[in-house]
Amino acid sequence: MSLLVVGSIGYDTIETDTDKIENALGGAAIHFSAASSLFSPTRVVGIVGEDFEMRDLQFLTDRGTDLSGVVVEKGKTFRWSCKYHADMNDRDTLSTELNVFENFRPEIPDSFRDSDYLFLANIHPELQMEVLNQVNKPVFTALDTMNFWIEGNRSQLVEVLKKVDVVFLNDTEALDFSGERFVYGAAKAISKFGPATVIIKKGEHGVIMYHDDTFFALPAYLLDSVKDPTGAGDAFAGGFMGYIAMQNSTGRDAFRRGLAYGTCVASFNCEEFGPKRLAEIDKDIVDGRLDEFQEMIRIS
Amino acid sequence: MSLLVVGSIGYDTIETDTDKIENALGGAAIHFSAASSLFSPTRVVGIVGEDFEMRDLQFLTDRGTDLSGVVVEKGKTFRWSCKYHADMNDRDTLSTELNVFENFRPEIPDSFRDSDYLFLANIHPELQMEVLNQVNKPVFTALDTMNFWIEGNRSQLVEVLKKVDVVFLNDTEALDFSGERFVYGAAKAISKFGPATVIIKKGEHGVIMYHDDTFFALPAYLLDSVKDPTGAGDAFAGGFMGYIAMQNSTGRDAFRRGLAYGTCVASFNCEEFGPKRLAEIDKDIVDGRLDEFQEMIRIS
Repeated sequence: MSLLVVGSIGYDTIETDTDKIENALGGAAIHFSAASSLFSPTRVVGIVGEDFEMRDLQFLTDRGTDLSGVVVEKGKTFRWSCKYHADMNDRDTLSTELNVFENFRPEIPDSFRDSDYLFLANIHPELQMEVLNQVNKPVFTALDTMNFWIEGNRSQLVEVLKKVDVVFLNDTEALDFSGERFVYGAAKAISKFGPATVIIKKGEHGVIMYHDDTFFALPAYLLDSVKDPTGAGDAFAGGFMGYIAMQNSTGRDAFRRGLAYGTCVASFNCEEFGPKRLAEIDKDIVDGRLDEFQEMIRIS
Repeated sequence: MSLLVVGSIGYDTIETDTDKIENALGGAAIHFSAASSLFSPTRVVGIVGEDFEMRDLQFLTDRGTDLSGVVVEKGKTFRWSCKYHADMNDRDTLSTELNVFENFRPEIPDSFRDSDYLFLANIHPELQMEVLNQVNKPVFTALDTMNFWIEGNRSQLVEVLKKVDVVFLNDTEALDFSGERFVYGAAKAISKFGPATVIIKKGEHGVIMYHDDTFFALPAYLLDSVKDPTGAGDAFAGGFMGYIAMQNSTGRDAFRRGLAYGTCVASFNCEEFGPKRLAEIDKDIVDGRLDEFQEMIRIS
């Protein structure tokens, strides 16, 4: 089934304790589609500047990704830089140059309006709402958000939450948004705002899903080393959405298996800067890691 | 099979954002045996002062726990107080009164020297070694430790690590001790010091086990609220050791199932101050939670 993602595309400059890269391909829509396209052809809506190298996205096109929603605007592409702490769960943003992304008003091409599965990557909740209004009748919609909107645009976020089936947040965001002390209560409270399913991302500590009044939890896949966790949450969502779009199922088993796939592609995402590792692999390699992951968590 | 624990017994004063308790029954040997005795009769070695209320341990005796290794010394019982942050992964120790615990030199009663399974709770590594030397021929030994000994008594800790089958640490301790950047490498490095099995506790984020050159990971059981996490790591170890002693198996499947049981009893430990909740429940209730937990993590 058709899968659409709307979100940022940019270049990231990233420094860790051991490595540094300048102008790596980045942005939520890129990390998402680098993962989702391993499962389902993906439609992308975003904006880039004249300096953007479209050939960097060749790996996506090769997997049937439709980039006809990527608008090239006069000016420079979105750029972001950060430095990770030794504990890579923490990072400091060093600079954000919105450039053409500043005036991003997503326009969904006519040929994308029939999309069945829709992922609203982390952008202004008002823009997320505009996208929702442009898609005819999606069967399944998900959104990601961040503290910036939770703190600064709560009422608009609340409006768009009413309209989606799934929300992705990290654990701190879930506690902040809900005002609860524990993720258990946070997930239940957030679900009351609209989304039947709440997916709480915990990075290296895995994921918790609240759905149908039950909780599901997975640890992360254990990597020997993490090169760059940037975009892992988007890759995670991409693996989840790509899998359920491929299965065309929004049942409980598809969700659970989708989160296991999301866990695996997120781990690949962390092995290299940008979506480099996700660009190299194929579905068979992901299936191999899923087998390893299932063995890693098998009790008996 | 016979299971022996050597560790602290005391009274804890604990404050959280919402609750406070004074002089709750505490100490590693108590939280451990409150959990392990749900599976296997447990032998306890520890020290208390004249002010200690032995009847507080009646629930342990009722489960076949042998307290003949608990020495009553002139003076006061070990006391500790702490205050948890809003994020209960962090806490500040407010006071530590060692009292009779200061001169604790564990003497293993003759009737305990044939113990098959041995847990050395978090005490000075030199004392852990003394205990090892007093037990005839244990089939399986485990130790817990903490940053205090890692930083201040590393060489003695290294000596005792050579002699045990399993070490329990939390993730920060594992990174500190090994000097590695990631738990993956930390677990492998620590295993090279001696213990064939390294169990890295991550509190609300679950557990990772390195054993036989493979990794195993579990999330924690998701509680609606945590009243007091004090002693959860000891209860966790108690569930693990109690189960494998009950099964009299140190095979891979017993280890994995033991960690799942450890996860469940640790969650009960957090539901009340001290070992109160563990004192109330029985093995059937733990089995019920294990079923729920397995359902919570079932992919398909």
